[in-house]
Amino acid sequence: MRAIDRRAMLLASAGLGLSAWAGDLAHAQSDALPSWNDGATRKSITDFVARVTTQGGTDFVPPDQRIATFDNDGTLWIEQPMYVQLAFILDRVKALAPQNPSWATTQPFKAVLDGDMQALAASGEKGLVELMAVTHAGMTNDEFAKIVSDWLASARDHRFKRPYTELVYQPMLELLAYLRANGFKTFIVSGGGIEFMRPWTEKVYGIPPEQVVGSSIKTRFEMRDGRPLLFRLPEINFIDDKTGKPIGINEHIGRRPIAAFGNSDGDLEMLQWTTLGGGVRFGLIVHHTDAEREYAYDRQSHFGKLDKALDAAAVNRWTVVDMKRDWKRVFAFQ
Amino acid sequence: MRAIDRRAMLLASAGLGLSAWAGDLAHAQSDALPSWNDGATRKSITDFVARVTTQGGTDFVPPDQRIATFDNDGTLWIEQPMYVQLAFILDRVKALAPQNPSWATTQPFKAVLDGDMQALAASGEKGLVELMAVTHAGMTNDEFAKIVSDWLASARDHRFKRPYTELVYQPMLELLAYLRANGFKTFIVSGGGIEFMRPWTEKVYGIPPEQVVGSSIKTRFEMRDGRPLLFRLPEINFIDDKTGKPIGINEHIGRRPIAAFGNSDGDLEMLQWTTLGGGVRFGLIVHHTDAEREYAYDRQSHFGKLDKALDAAAVNRWTVVDMKRDWKRVFAFQ
Repeated sequence: MRAIDRRAMLLASAGLGLSAWAGDLAHAQSDALPSWNDGATRKSITDFVARVTTQGGTDFVPPDQRIATFDNDGTLWIEQPMYVQLAFILDRVKALAPQNPSWATTQPFKAVLDGDMQALAASGEKGLVELMAVTHAGMTNDEFAKIVSDWLASARDHRFKRPYTELVYQPMLELLAYLRANGFKTFIVSGGGIEFMRPWTEKVYGIPPEQVVGSSIKTRFEMRDGRPLLFRLPEINFIDDKTGKPIGINEHIGRRPIAAFGNSDGDLEMLQWTTLGGGVRFGLIVHHTDAEREYAYDRQSHFGKLDKALDAAAVNRWTVVDMKRDWKRVFAFQ
Repeated sequence: MRAIDRRAMLLASAGLGLSAWAGDLAHAQSDALPSWNDGATRKSITDFVARVTTQGGTDFVPPDQRIATFDNDGTLWIEQPMYVQLAFILDRVKALAPQNPSWATTQPFKAVLDGDMQALAASGEKGLVELMAVTHAGMTNDEFAKIVSDWLASARDHRFKRPYTELVYQPMLELLAYLRANGFKTFIVSGGGIEFMRPWTEKVYGIPPEQVVGSSIKTRFEMRDGRPLLFRLPEINFIDDKTGKPIGINEHIGRRPIAAFGNSDGDLEMLQWTTLGGGVRFGLIVHHTDAEREYAYDRQSHFGKLDKALDAAAVNRWTVVDMKRDWKRVFAFQ
């Protein structure tokens, strides 16, 4: 994706002449968000981009400082009826059960194998950590990437009967491309597992592995038969959620974003960190209001709860996307 | 730097015609390493770059996978007679001493104030951690960046009477630029503090903050008077040295480099991780052999000890730079 983008930029610059290219791309690209309805939401995005990219303007931001961070679950792809990574965990436990006969009688594994979501919920965080350990650790990073890729190739969402990588929001894909065409560097900053995302984010979002920030477990470096490897350990390294998001952003990116995109309370601190430090900044929350084309949920949801951040959006003048009103379509296939 | 590089590329492409630009840049740039003497060392670099950038060649690597990682201390800038970051610590303790009268009689502070390096060494790792805590923690990240920048603007190396940011190796600056001109993305992967490097690496090396990997302490997210900040805590987060280097590379970059550059045993695992996973790969060690223009040290050195990695270089056919023989000059001012 990146190589193609760069070539496209070069071709465009040759065709338009360099001065035109270096000018106000934002205006030339006002049709770059075809799945967004006209209105205040869309305008807030294009106005912000025009302000920070207009050379000589008081709000101009040099390209190398145009950092934009995106949450993943519920912001770029679906997170209902459960996080995709949780669906992966449940499937992996079922796949590994034949080699682990004791799981048939031991919680939390029994709950997964019986499809007993109440018993699973009752196992709490301790149960989830046990499930993470057997599904995410005990193999090399390369092996884990292959497990994730193989699973994504075959798994289907129950409602839409589609691979999860097709359940990405078309308007957000257009937004990512629009920002990159305007010199932004786009990052994912997700509570999800960093190595659960990296095998597919470049293909699906155009975001390379080095621009993915997420939660992680510890790894150990080993030489095995003369070959170096990283072995995944059943121990939390970093939780990239809530206050962890600005910390993860700082550790990986080392400067503040000028735009941040989220959909839940887990994104509150990222939005604060991005928008409340001074200068023209942009915050956006995807509000899931469309039960027909996708889902409708906010303050009471188990996954992607949006409560405090929705109140903060009003106070801080962050853009709130009303999915039903603002998006012409949710998924590319619709 | 990056914005300028990009514009330079565009101008070059307009002048040369796109097809010429997209062709074999490596050949066009054979004069890109003017401070390197002709010989096997220089040739090993240009041969590698030609192989991985020749479109249609069996060893071609797409640009997005051309990741190159560089150690900092002793590889890009000076590390004798002590790490620059240690000189910073000693200076900061002296600067903060008037507000901390008890330090005059308490180790390890007394040792620093007396210039008693033997007593300082005797305080061991525990002493160093105490010195780190008072000089690197207890302020916001933004405040720390300013402290580092101010110090670098005024501090001078005792032997060369120059700012430390001028004590960077001119041949390595050329190498960084040469790799970037050939589509590589260059990263720093250093045992030094990530926030000690980020304030100046873009200006000095053309490497932006998001491409700096280093050791870190923990931070805490806070809202203070309605403004978000990251407060630095006296607690180690990550040590980016030895086996930590491949772990840090994986966490920040998420794919293996195809070229790695180091100078000491702290770089051994980074070089293994980069070069021993299959494919055409490049490893290089800067061997400090030039006491006249810089320093000569290796197996017995306190800082930048090069012992195991020098043996491994022979076994694994990594390029070893003989500074005295291979470099026309060490620093730009020479």
